[in-house]
Amino acid sequence: MKLKNPLDMHLHLRDDEMLKLVAPFSAKDFSAGVIMPNLVPPICDLESLKSYKIRILKACKDENFNPLMTLFFKYYDEKFLEQAKDEIFGIKLYPAGITTNSSEGISNLSIESLKPTLEAMSALNIPLLVHGETNDFVMDRESNFAKIYEKLAKNFPRLKIVMEHITTLTLSRLLKDYENLYATITLHHLMITLDDVIGDKMNPYLFCKPIAKRYEDKEALCELAFSAYDKVMFGSDSAPHPKHAKECCGCAAGVFSAGVILPVLAELFEQNSSKANLQKFISDNACKIHNLKFQKDKMIVLEKKEWCVPNLYKDQYNQVMPYMAGKNLKFQVKY
Amino acid sequence: MKLKNPLDMHLHLRDDEMLKLVAPFSAKDFSAGVIMPNLVPPICDLESLKSYKIRILKACKDENFNPLMTLFFKYYDEKFLEQAKDEIFGIKLYPAGITTNSSEGISNLSIESLKPTLEAMSALNIPLLVHGETNDFVMDRESNFAKIYEKLAKNFPRLKIVMEHITTLTLSRLLKDYENLYATITLHHLMITLDDVIGDKMNPYLFCKPIAKRYEDKEALCELAFSAYDKVMFGSDSAPHPKHAKECCGCAAGVFSAGVILPVLAELFEQNSSKANLQKFISDNACKIHNLKFQKDKMIVLEKKEWCVPNLYKDQYNQVMPYMAGKNLKFQVKY
Repeated sequence: MKLKNPLDMHLHLRDDEMLKLVAPFSAKDFSAGVIMPNLVPPICDLESLKSYKIRILKACKDENFNPLMTLFFKYYDEKFLEQAKDEIFGIKLYPAGITTNSSEGISNLSIESLKPTLEAMSALNIPLLVHGETNDFVMDRESNFAKIYEKLAKNFPRLKIVMEHITTLTLSRLLKDYENLYATITLHHLMITLDDVIGDKMNPYLFCKPIAKRYEDKEALCELAFSAYDKVMFGSDSAPHPKHAKECCGCAAGVFSAGVILPVLAELFEQNSSKANLQKFISDNACKIHNLKFQKDKMIVLEKKEWCVPNLYKDQYNQVMPYMAGKNLKFQVKY
Repeated sequence: MKLKNPLDMHLHLRDDEMLKLVAPFSAKDFSAGVIMPNLVPPICDLESLKSYKIRILKACKDENFNPLMTLFFKYYDEKFLEQAKDEIFGIKLYPAGITTNSSEGISNLSIESLKPTLEAMSALNIPLLVHGETNDFVMDRESNFAKIYEKLAKNFPRLKIVMEHITTLTLSRLLKDYENLYATITLHHLMITLDDVIGDKMNPYLFCKPIAKRYEDKEALCELAFSAYDKVMFGSDSAPHPKHAKECCGCAAGVFSAGVILPVLAELFEQNSSKANLQKFISDNACKIHNLKFQKDKMIVLEKKEWCVPNLYKDQYNQVMPYMAGKNLKFQVKY
């Protein structure tokens, strides 16, 4: 199976040692990745953004990989956004405190306060990427954010709004109601429900935000992905944490899927859809939505050759447990 | 504040080293405890039951504590139950595989298959204690068991059925619909929701079965407990696991509350109810429902004296993290 220019439209690469450890996994398999800006401190200026991009490229070594940089949403003015436009792919909005490293996120999501920035983004055609959760009861956080997405979609009809890592039937429906709403879907949300996280034993390695929901929610996401609905894109939300941060009392949220994405997707789409739809989901849809072009195409070949996902990629300071650790996969990327 | 004969109507004491570690916590504060039979292998015969009781009494040292023994539900015949009657408080039914050490539980919950045993129990006035969960989606498991409770209540109207550790608005309502249904409520389910378990970070020490539910569910339980509704009893479901079994990948279910129950309940009832209602909830209701009498009364004195719950009771092989570890409590039991 061949895939042309796979794109990871939602990726956490972290920084320093962790960046060096995880970046090669994405760089080998993908043409580009949309890089999340929630470092500590978050990426809010162009100097930080550029130097982070250099560190990423260095960590990727000589792979042909394009980091599509994002800024952490602040009330930016038009002048700054004009300068930023050519350096960034989009701006990521985090409600304050809603997930890992989001304490500097936005508390006031009123249209009034967002208006100057969002109108400028709209005029400059800069997409808004949103972590859409309220701070309500954990199972309702995403569904309850639907009204905010609606407000944004209505008030800024020319703004491209990406509902990141959607996990609910509610948002899968909302996507179809507004022309300017788009969505990314992760690998793990196509595969797990809350039962996998806390139904039998508690599994810290499947703990993520938004939390996996009900079976009917997972089904709705699968329907969008497997039909390659033209407003959905793949975005892994791959988010490494060192083993100790996952297993100590009070585990951090995030699934690290970077190294297994294409083999697992190949298997899922072989069973439930088609190779053509995987190509759309993993690349073509995003290219159309965001008008993406690459200087040099990347062709990924997946061969049928069983392998077992290792339990830890490296037994070192930054040990990170991969998604599907210990599981046998049918496909393997040919390097 | 004084409490007469506090009763823990649902208690896991385990065996061996763990039993020796945890039994004294319950023995010091309670007159009696209903001892769960889900050891490995489960307690299914009178010889095992009697020797377990001796081990418990030994572990309690010289405290005035009555272990109210239970058998693990099997299709027992009438002859056996007649012999067992004087040795046991009740019989605990576990659907197969539903919680810790329940693999030998019951797969077939049809009235037909349960009938001989339940009719004999009914005739001999032996209460049926039930872990009421189906194997559906984790948030629906208890509510979906309501129809089985209804079937049991209707078909065996003289059988005393205790819905153990209820966690939902659904069962709090069902309790009022059938005369022969009773319920126990834990301490932690009066205090936490799913938000505390997975809403921010993932907390393995609040992971239990049934899992904590929504705010409206917690409110319903609080209303029953704080009003000391005469069909509810306190049952801690205190269930110790060694630290490594809680924090390794795939954490075991259970909250270990034994050492902090009375101080925390005193604080909760002082804020939300009355001392008189706490006396009913912690003892009088159960005494009436089960016609319990004790040779020697136990008076527990709670004094207002702040203390901090230690992080680990013992730094040894069986380290167990207590509920409320690191928290300051207002009341203290006077020994």
